[in-house]
Amino acid sequence: GVFTSNKVKAAPVVLSQQVVAGGSARAVVLNSGGANACTGKPGYADAVAAAEQVAKSLGCEPGHVAVASTGLIGTRLPMDRLLPGITTAASQLSASKGPEAAQAIMTTDTVSKQATVTLSSGVVIGGMAKGAGMMAPALATMLVVVTTDADVSSADLAAALVPATTRTFDRVDIDGCMSTNDTVLLMASGASGVPIAVGSDDWAEFAAGVADVCADLAKQLACDAEGASKLITITVTGAASEADAVDVARSIARSALLKCAIHGEDANWGRVLAAAGTTTSDFDPDLVDVSFNGVLLCAGGVEVGDRVAGAEALKPREVIIAVDLHAGEASATILTSDLTADYVHENSAYST
Amino acid sequence: GVFTSNKVKAAPVVLSQQVVAGGSARAVVLNSGGANACTGKPGYADAVAAAEQVAKSLGCEPGHVAVASTGLIGTRLPMDRLLPGITTAASQLSASKGPEAAQAIMTTDTVSKQATVTLSSGVVIGGMAKGAGMMAPALATMLVVVTTDADVSSADLAAALVPATTRTFDRVDIDGCMSTNDTVLLMASGASGVPIAVGSDDWAEFAAGVADVCADLAKQLACDAEGASKLITITVTGAASEADAVDVARSIARSALLKCAIHGEDANWGRVLAAAGTTTSDFDPDLVDVSFNGVLLCAGGVEVGDRVAGAEALKPREVIIAVDLHAGEASATILTSDLTADYVHENSAYST
Repeated sequence: GVFTSNKVKAAPVVLSQQVVAGGSARAVVLNSGGANACTGKPGYADAVAAAEQVAKSLGCEPGHVAVASTGLIGTRLPMDRLLPGITTAASQLSASKGPEAAQAIMTTDTVSKQATVTLSSGVVIGGMAKGAGMMAPALATMLVVVTTDADVSSADLAAALVPATTRTFDRVDIDGCMSTNDTVLLMASGASGVPIAVGSDDWAEFAAGVADVCADLAKQLACDAEGASKLITITVTGAASEADAVDVARSIARSALLKCAIHGEDANWGRVLAAAGTTTSDFDPDLVDVSFNGVLLCAGGVEVGDRVAGAEALKPREVIIAVDLHAGEASATILTSDLTADYVHENSAYST
Repeated sequence: GVFTSNKVKAAPVVLSQQVVAGGSARAVVLNSGGANACTGKPGYADAVAAAEQVAKSLGCEPGHVAVASTGLIGTRLPMDRLLPGITTAASQLSASKGPEAAQAIMTTDTVSKQATVTLSSGVVIGGMAKGAGMMAPALATMLVVVTTDADVSSADLAAALVPATTRTFDRVDIDGCMSTNDTVLLMASGASGVPIAVGSDDWAEFAAGVADVCADLAKQLACDAEGASKLITITVTGAASEADAVDVARSIARSALLKCAIHGEDANWGRVLAAAGTTTSDFDPDLVDVSFNGVLLCAGGVEVGDRVAGAEALKPREVIIAVDLHAGEASATILTSDLTADYVHENSAYST
């Protein structure tokens, strides 16, 4: 499991971290409509009660049940409705109901998100995710559950999941707002009878499969960002280090001004340089190249392109901003979305 | 002089830093419409040519002329219009034309900004500023010129200006976007015949006067932020250090979600905690109190107030968000604005 690094952690995150630390999760229960964050000890007791209800319904240990919640921060969950709901949901468990689960956890998401990969051994890795782009610490928390029928130890699952999330979910940055509830779980049932472990022949394929499912879900999250009209891929190359590349790409992804410009299909590349310049990354501004969807607009730090052609290049829904720092060999990519009036609208009146 | 810390610095910033380092500025020329940033060596030559034209018009050394520019990044200035414009402007210099200068440097600003303080000695400190809230690295760069008729050395002016800007302009954070052109200049003519120096009896009053003018202009900038419908003052108290207080207040000020909620007069205080939790500041989330315009909504990290009363408290244009971390004695205040559809609109089609 991988969880939010926010100092303010929701009760279900605290509980699930303990479950993951124990190394054995048999089930996970997810609810939308309430984040169960900033709810104190009573909120934690609610998360425990949810896990106990799942354990009772499935006949497993309560300490083996992870919990994930998403919704408004600061209000208690309606336990009188949630506990019977768990019993009902448990009675309808079925191998064919993945799509319904993916749909049930949606909040401001406009489409459900699933991804699967089948390995050469027949092992399947599948996942579902919700979150309108990691954008909201309230309604649109990112929750992801990835499962596999491989027989993998808890420690080895972590060895596959942590690097996968570092380069996928951690590189989606819609509005710079870190949730109190973000949760990514990877669970292995062993049902395929195929044992996989760090160092085994098929480990690399398995780890890559986990990363592929995570990358697929991460892209689906960014595509469905609240109010977004563009999916923006920011690729920084020629960086002195991968950390520098991430730093520059993330700074660009967090420029509200640039995100407005892309929304308006305005090839205002100066906002890319202005954002890059706020980082401590090692590069010379007079060497930087910037292109929008392949149209080179800035070379060696000065304008070379045609802003009209640049604006034309911004018409597709998917926009690739490529930045070459000419400072080294490292690179990184961050996914984000544009900033729109619809984002403002969706987030200006949520809790009322 | 205090300048942007952006690694990507506009040509006039580079030139003015040299002038300030020399310790003697006799004049400053400001233009709007073009930032003269990312324009390479030709852009730097344009800034030098502007300074030379001013020097010729006023009969001073070119090396004593500071230059400040604001506008679109990446395009050259129209020197064929700018140089004659300098001659015309110089011919109209007058002690009574401060308001016209303050108006001339406006871009997306909706009102001009000036402030004056008169000290007990009769010394006057006056300033003008432009910038729709430090929001834009392109059109809305923050340019500030403060002048005084006190007789103060260059080093002592810096001793007054640097701490003043640290707690005023540096604590306006509208959209997290640092400009390539931000410039604050403090110039002393000595015309009053009143000498003031670090350690003199009236030094504290002078330094406070400079800080007051800066604070007044900073608030005017925040009030006129692009698209803003609310002026938001975020005050963090009970922090372990001033750096922690600034860190938490700035993180809250940069939460796009919170800024949307304030715009919608939605008392979604959970977004304050979620933003605070992303910092490395030293505090216990279970002790934090949050109030909106005096209405306590969260105490000890959990909801205590009434969201309807909280929404009512958000109706005025000025909103004070008070956060007590209960971790120490330090405090800090950051000014910001709400995030609106008008901001998106203003910034989605600037360069075209």
